[in-house]
Order: sequence, then C-alpha cells, then structure tokens
Amino acid sequence: MSLQIKHLLGLRGVGVPDLQAILDTADSFKEVLLREIKKVPPLRGKTILNLFYEASTRTRISFELAEKRLSGDVINFTTSASSVAKGESLKDTVKNIAAMKIDMIVVRHASPGVPAYLTQCTNAVVINAGDGSNEHPTQGLLDMMTMREKKGKLAGLRVAIIGDILHSRVARSNIWGLKAMGAEVRICGPSTLIPPDVSELGVQVFYRVEEAIAGADVVMALRIQLERQKSGLFPSLNEYRNLFGLNRYNIQAAKKDALIMHPGPINRGLELSSELADGAQSVILEQVTNGVAVRMAVLYLLSGADLEEKP
Amino acid sequence: MSLQIKHLLGLRGVGVPDLQAILDTADSFKEVLLREIKKVPPLRGKTILNLFYEASTRTRISFELAEKRLSGDVINFTTSASSVAKGESLKDTVKNIAAMKIDMIVVRHASPGVPAYLTQCTNAVVINAGDGSNEHPTQGLLDMMTMREKKGKLAGLRVAIIGDILHSRVARSNIWGLKAMGAEVRICGPSTLIPPDVSELGVQVFYRVEEAIAGADVVMALRIQLERQKSGLFPSLNEYRNLFGLNRYNIQAAKKDALIMHPGPINRGLELSSELADGAQSVILEQVTNGVAVRMAVLYLLSGADLEEKP
Amino acid sequence: MSLQIKHLLGLRGVGVPDLQAILDTADSFKEVLLREIKKVPPLRGKTILNLFYEASTRTRISFELAEKRLSGDVINFTTSASSVAKGESLKDTVKNIAAMKIDMIVVRHASPGVPAYLTQCTNAVVINAGDGSNEHPTQGLLDMMTMREKKGKLAGLRVAIIGDILHSRVARSNIWGLKAMGAEVRICGPSTLIPPDVSELGVQVFYRVEEAIAGADVVMALRIQLERQKSGLFPSLNEYRNLFGLNRYNIQAAKKDALIMHPGPINRGLELSSELADGAQSVILEQVTNGVAVRMAVLYLLSGADLEEKP
Repeated sequence: MSLQIKHLLGLRGVGVPDLQAILDTADSFKEVLLREIKKVPPLRGKTILNLFYEASTRTRISFELAEKRLSGDVINFTTSASSVAKGESLKDTVKNIAAMKIDMIVVRHASPGVPAYLTQCTNAVVINAGDGSNEHPTQGLLDMMTMREKKGKLAGLRVAIIGDILHSRVARSNIWGLKAMGAEVRICGPSTLIPPDVSELGVQVFYRVEEAIAGADVVMALRIQLERQKSGLFPSLNEYRNLFGLNRYNIQAAKKDALIMHPGPINRGLELSSELADGAQSVILEQVTNGVAVRMAVLYLLSGADLEEKP
Repeated sequence: MSLQIKHLLGLRGVGVPDLQAILDTADSFKEVLLREIKKVPPLRGKTILNLFYEASTRTRISFELAEKRLSGDVINFTTSASSVAKGESLKDTVKNIAAMKIDMIVVRHASPGVPAYLTQCTNAVVINAGDGSNEHPTQGLLDMMTMREKKGKLAGLRVAIIGDILHSRVARSNIWGLKAMGAEVRICGPSTLIPPDVSELGVQVFYRVEEAIAGADVVMALRIQLERQKSGLFPSLNEYRNLFGLNRYNIQAAKKDALIMHPGPINRGLELSSELADGAQSVILEQVTNGVAVRMAVLYLLSGADLEEKP
Repeated sequence: MSLQIKHLLGLRGVGVPDLQAILDTADSFKEVLLREIKKVPPLRGKTILNLFYEASTRTRISFELAEKRLSGDVINFTTSASSVAKGESLKDTVKNIAAMKIDMIVVRHASPGVPAYLTQCTNAVVINAGDGSNEHPTQGLLDMMTMREKKGKLAGLRVAIIGDILHSRVARSNIWGLKAMGAEVRICGPSTLIPPDVSELGVQVFYRVEEAIAGADVVMALRIQLERQKSGLFPSLNEYRNLFGLNRYNIQAAKKDALIMHPGPINRGLELSSELADGAQSVILEQVTNGVAVRMAVLYLLSGADLEEKP
C-alpha cells in the first residue's frame, strides 16, 4: 500500500483516499501498541532523523517511539547540539545530513514552510512535526483518528475549535483534514486571534463559546501560549478564562456526549477546567495514545512509497 | 521468576526473597557483561523511559546500558528538553507519556516520593533511580552485590558508612537493604549530618571515624556535595577532611582486608584519599560494573512480573 | 581481517597496509549505504560510547549512523550532561564508564592527546573524533577515500590545503595519511597560521594561493574558525577572503578537473565561494557520504582486532 503524497507537509490538499489509508493503518497499529511486544519490522535498516529546531518533549518522544516500534534506526538532532550557532544555513545543514543517506526526516521548525523547503534539499521523505503557525499534520490526524474511533465517522460531525486560531498549526491541520472528510468545523476565539483569511478555510466563525459549541459532537480547546501575552493581540488571562475557558457550565451547550479534546500540554483552569480535562467526556489521553499509532502509520506508508520503486 | 514487589521504589520493606532473587540474577547477568556479545533478548519489544529530572551521567548511562543489553527500546527524557518550562505538572507529563504505552519508567527526581507518586499516575513499572534524600535502591543493591561477591555473604558483615548521612539516599538504601540481609550497619559523620530519625533505622551512630570502622568488613565513604557547604550544617572542607576523610592512617582501624567503597564521583583527597581509592582494597570500579548487572536484574525481574500475567 | 593498530588515535605513523585496508573496507561499506536496507550485523552486542567534550553535530551523527548501521548499541555522552561540572577528572570519568564494559569509545576533546591518554585508562578500543589541533583521523581518511574514488589513486596526486594550517587537525591528519600513501601535499595560508614544525611534516609551504594550487589535482579549503579572529594571528576577514579565499578566478591555476574539497561547515564566500562549493568540481557532499563509510570501516576493523583474540 502507498499514498498519493510522497511527503507529509500538511493536511491541506491531501486527498480523501490518503487520509483514509492513514487512519485505517493507524487503527491497525494501535492494536500493536496494546500488545505485550510492541514491535514490528517494517523500518528495519531505515534511518530516520528527528530534526527539531524547537523543543518539544511530547511530539519528539511520540515520533521516536513510533520509529523504534517500527524497528527504524533513530537519530535525534536538536538545536542545542546543532551547527546553527556556527552560522551554517538550514540548507547546508540538511544537505549535509542527507548526504549521510537518511531515509526520512521528521522536522519541527518555528518558520512556516521549512518542511516543504527541505523536500528541495534532499531525497529523503519529509514529515512535518509542526512548522510555525502553518500546520502540524500528525496532530490533525491523531485528532481525526480519535473522533472517528469514538463517533464511528467523521462526515457530518460538528467540531468546535476554541482558542487562538490565528497562531495555531493544530487548528489549521484539523480544519483542512476535517473539511476534506466532510465534517463541519466551527472556530471561536477573541476577534484579534481569528485569522484574516478565515473565509478561505471554509469554517464558521463564532465569538461566543456557547454559540460555537451548540450541538457540537467534539469540542477542542487549544493551548494558550502564555508567551504571546505581550503581543498586544491578547486579552488578559482572566478575561480569556471568563470568555473562552471551557468549564462544566458552558460545556452544556454542546451535545451531552460531546468529546472534550486538547492537544496538550493543558493550562488547567485557563482554557480548560480540570474537571473537564479529567472527566468522562475527555479523550485527551486517548489522543496521546493515538498519536503514536498515527505516526507509525505515516512513517510506514511513506516509507512504503519508496519500497515500491524497487522490483 | 518474579518478585513480590511490582515496582522498585526503595529497599525499605523489600523482603529477603526479593533481595536475594535480585542479587542472584545480577550475578548471572554479570557473566553476560564479561562476554564478547553483551546482549540478551528479554526486553525486546518493551519500551523503557529514562525520566531524569536531575542530571546524572553515570546512573543514566548505567541504566541505558542495562536496558539496551536486554534489547529494550530506550527513550531518554531529561529536564532540559522537557515541558517543565511550559509549566505542566509532573502528573500531567507522566500521564501523557504513559499514554504512549511505556512499559517501564526509570525516574530520578529531586523530591522524595516522586517514584511512588508515579505508580498512581501510570500502569508502567516504576524504578527509582534516586529521589531526593530518600532512596537510591539500585545503588544499594549494587553495593550489596559487591559486598556479597567479595565477602561471600552479607549476614554478619560489619559495614561502616561515613559522611553526610542526612542527605544521602545512598546511605538510606544501603541501610534498609543491609539490615534486611542481616548485616551490622554503622554510620558516622558530623552530628549535624546524622538524621534525627536515626534510631528508627536500626544502626549504630558514631562521631569518630576510627570507632565507626573498628573491625569493619566494609568501609563506605559518601560523596560530599560541595554545593551543600552553604547550608550551615557543614564544617569547612578542611575540617571535614581532617575529621572524616578516609586515608591510609585511619583505615587501619578496620579489618585488614576491609573493602573500600564509594558511590562516585569521588572528591579525591576530601572524603577519600587517592591512595585508598586506587588501592588494593578498593572495589569502587567493581561497584560500577555491578551497577549494570543489578539494573539488568531489576529490569528483567520486574518486567517478568508482567510477562507472567499472560498465559 | 584486522589492523596493525589497536586504536585510531591519528594517522601519524599508521602503516600503508592499514590505511589501504581501511579505504578498501570503506569502499565496500559505501555499497551498503546505497542499498535500501542500510544495516549489517558485525557490531551486534557491542557497546560504543560517543564521548563528546566538544559539540559537533556532523561528526557525532556520522559516527552514530555508522555504529547503528553496524548494529552496535550506542550511548551518547556529551559535556552538557556530564560530571565535568561536578569536578571529576577525565580519568575518573573514563575509568568509571569503562567499568560498565564499553567495547569502543569515540572521543572528541579540545585537548590534544586525550584519545591517547584514554588508552591508558581503559581496555576499550579508542577512536579519535578530533583532539584539539592535533588530529581528526577519520576526516583524513574520508578525504583520502574521496580522492582515491575520484582520481583512482593517491600516489602522485598533488593536494593543496589552504587555510589555518596551524590550528587544523583536519590538515594534520590529511598530511600524515596522504604523505604515507605517496601524495604530494602543499599547504598555504597566512604566515602566522603556518605551523613552526612544518619542515617535519614533509610538505611544501606557499603563501600565495595561485602558486600553491598550480597543477593541483585536489584543492582543499579549510574552515576559518571565526572565534579565532581575536587571537592576533589572523588577518581581517576581508583580507583573508581577498588573499586566501577560493573562487572561480584563482581556482583556474589548478588542474581543470581538480577536486574542490572542504571539511564543512563552510563559511560561504569567505574561504570558498558558493559557486565553487556547489559547482561541478565540488565533492563536498561526497565527502560527507564517505565519512559514514569510513567510520563503519574503522569501527568494524578495530572491533575485529578484538574478535581475533578469541578462539
């Protein structure tokens, strides 16, 4: 099996067959994760480079687990140990590392477009692990996997995403993926944090939480980046909590069995109350488990594209 | 084979059969370490997370070697790369990582009790690699393994531990383990560095080195944590060296063939003279070798407890 | 197959049969790198420690790839996570780590002679990954491999090395290796950056680039360490570029098909123009690929020396 796409740069423009193949494969890999022996051989003899220009505990560990459980050889490269300090360009760094015959590169970078740019510097398969405020496609996929698992489908689901949409690569990947699969996506946040190109995204915009989540099957709270407070775009934390924080009261506007989701780490009591985060509707830890399964699926299917070129 | 304990949180309360099983298994694994091919398969397909909130070269490398020689998949997580900076709670970090289906967690943390707390947040097997001044059980076990190997038994041995007992998790683990195995434990140090609950520990307290080590089979010097100098509890370094530093003169109060031990790294010429550290009685490097064997034994036996649940 | 040498501390004094064996073996391993499955089993069950006291992205990754593709177990130890801060001596650190039964140590250190010193502290095989301004033997070998691959031989080749020869371990390793293999080596740089012991090296010294590279088969530009600017030995960057920077104009003094080499990372437009770095004569990325192959060869052949001691 292989995909139409050769790299996973974002969910924008990815076709439904590819999305479905990834989600189906992720379901199979999830079974592997629940076994005693969580290891399968498809990436044996392949080298995967985790190229992280931004610190990220969870995403890096999730990818590393996925890679090792597929029996790949893993090399971690983080900024602190990099040639960045020596003033070498990203292009030179990547071309040099690629010359060591890396098969796949998982890249996180603060600048949108870096993963796409890497595909021009190397023959390795490139997987975007988050590029600035552009996309975080494996996060979008793990969210979709979780919704599909719990609700049985994606088409027709009403999904409300609450928070700083403007800077959120998580929101963007979810929007592209969910729209492609036929879900209804609603976004809600302070007006300064709604992207100007929002009409392009094909979503409905709300400025009041209760309206946004009315009748929703899924309510996703985004993490407030506290360091953005100084940007001038942001209300105070108190104001944000009062207007956009999800809690036992305002959640009642959603469906009774609506899923509560969050990409983590949570600012408890700010964008999401602890009660909801740990409550019966929360699937937040399920999202984390599914993250490993989705990343195994993406790594496997994209490496498979390569394998097909051989006789 | 499996143990009564499900986690290794400390040596306090661990039964003699468990201690003996670990030491016997460690002896077998030591043979593996001396072979050309130092690798055996029992942890294949298992994932072990090294969760180190305190920097520790030796202990981390020793565990990593043990894990890899048992064929486990190893993920390293250290504070510098963590979500701690993002303000996430320990509980959330651990629950999230555990949701990725980790089998075992080796944890070091500055706060006593963190390993025990983790057992409430996750189903993974937890191994304490040092929690504040509470316990460092694999250090205690490797010390016991070394004593047993050199002296043929533990019961009846006279072991003198010299130094900052108050802050020493190494001392505490040795005391619990050695007492359980029937050794006589004596402690000695500045009166400000003897723990107030010392009677509870079942050890004899001495304030003069020569008295403490009189007739001892084993003399263990603890590392002086130089950063504790400011605490007000400490004599000057010169005073400490003069009163509690072990050297060729005062060591003569111990048995002629007494073992000289130290958990490392040594402040040479402070708590221990170089002459003793490198002399014929020193088993300090043997302790390091045995550390890997003991950690292999603990990892193997605690994972084995899991394996037995399957048919 | 095994080598005369037991460690790779430098290329000085290494015999021609050893150099040839390494280069021939590297050629075979290069084929492995170009395969779909880049993995062979010879280091299975062996533990290799990468002991890096200086940050180095490329060299560390290149060694790590070589080790993993030979199926070794890899432990990374870098200064940031080390006991250096705790004031332990290099000797104690190494003796302790060696007591964990490490098979091979790859070491980088700012002080010349550290790799040689380590052979006195441990039974492990030691490979120098750069020691101050002394040697960087695997870099010399990968350069020689690249020249031999492109030119069919080393004997009789005219190789010009341009730059800060005084501080360059890369230059030194190339000089020893190339001279042993019968190449003619010329060096060129500011007079303050030519080593005083140059006559000992058996090379010709030039102070003008065009003269140095006249008729050369290979032109190697060294990286200018910008941090050395303050040393007083250095001309200004502009002056350096004008006098010693390689570009489309001055390169014409070399043979038409002369190879352009650089150990990386390049200061583009300083010691080497981008046009040359990316042009048809450049083999800079080939050097990087060959680096992995050469390191696999060295690791394999030196571990093999050990294997032979067994029946």
